[in-house]
Amino acid sequence: MAELAARSGLSVATIKYYLREGLLHSGEAVGQTRTRYDDSHVRRLRLIRALTDVANLRLDTVRSVIEGIEQAKSWPEAVGSAHRRLVPEPLTAPSDASLARVDGLLDRRGWTLREGGRHRETLAHALDTVAELGDEVDDELLDTYGDAMARVATVETARLDPSDRERAAELAVMGTLLLEPVLLTVRRIAQENAARAARGESI
Amino acid sequence: MAELAARSGLSVATIKYYLREGLLHSGEAVGQTRTRYDDSHVRRLRLIRALTDVANLRLDTVRSVIEGIEQAKSWPEAVGSAHRRLVPEPLTAPSDASLARVDGLLDRRGWTLREGGRHRETLAHALDTVAELGDEVDDELLDTYGDAMARVATVETARLDPSDRERAAELAVMGTLLLEPVLLTVRRIAQENAARAARGESI
Repeated sequence: MAELAARSGLSVATIKYYLREGLLHSGEAVGQTRTRYDDSHVRRLRLIRALTDVANLRLDTVRSVIEGIEQAKSWPEAVGSAHRRLVPEPLTAPSDASLARVDGLLDRRGWTLREGGRHRETLAHALDTVAELGDEVDDELLDTYGDAMARVATVETARLDPSDRERAAELAVMGTLLLEPVLLTVRRIAQENAARAARGESI
Repeated sequence: MAELAARSGLSVATIKYYLREGLLHSGEAVGQTRTRYDDSHVRRLRLIRALTDVANLRLDTVRSVIEGIEQAKSWPEAVGSAHRRLVPEPLTAPSDASLARVDGLLDRRGWTLREGGRHRETLAHALDTVAELGDEVDDELLDTYGDAMARVATVETARLDPSDRERAAELAVMGTLLLEPVLLTVRRIAQENAARAARGESI
């Protein structure tokens, strides 16, 4: 238990709490007073930390994401399930115009969406917000995003070992959340450099 | 004033508050009881809405971002200034190893950073968090992000009209914040499709 705490960066009290709450599976009893934990426990605790500390999710959302990973029959299904549980429902319904824009992007890329997911509505709602505030995402920009993210997702996916379903699912969910700040910071650096390049400005 | 409220989506009381607080510049007095507002007022109010409602920033951060836009001598400078004010300082110092990884990315792409910015530390800190949680962003993935974001930033920058400094700066700052949810949702759709493609799975 002490080793588990050291390797996960969590306190013993927190780990015991997660065990009681069923967020962490039990270890194997070894003799009267000892319990054996393995790498799967360390990984699970790191995932919980990523979801709570980094992504700032509430514990009931974390529980729901973990249940999704455990119940999924494949890791792509686990990723879809986690995404569905991570995205809050938009407060207002998106416009038909923006939904049509999203469908256009999906068509042009040959992308499909899982039933029960909310990406279509979430994306359309985001486009509505941009439009409401006086800007517009035209199809050229939307396709640029689609193209860029298709490349990114292909490289990200190639890093996963599909033979270990649960491990791949955990890594994929962590990747979605933890790599977002990396990607967005790279985007801001790229924007500043593109802006200076467009003006022929040096630093 | 009523028209300004309708066009910005804000209440008259809120607009008066922003005027008092100096977040919105005054209109032009026309006769005894009327004041004329123009497009610059509508744009400014939309920017404030984007920063408060969508990006969830506190009003003192909003004020600081707006001051940055007003004081900047060019719009690339305004973007850099806004980014600097938007990014919270990392709580712990990033590791030397991750800083070296960031420098490697900047070198390979020929990107430079403005003095006083925090992107280098923010990105290194994000890489540390990923590593601490048992994953790793290798140089191939980092360069994939760099390449994807360079393309995205070039298309985004080409949309701005550089002859109107303040307008370009406002749009660039809105674009950074408002387009992030668009980009991240497209990324999640791309990931689910890449995962299914990797498994040869259909929907």
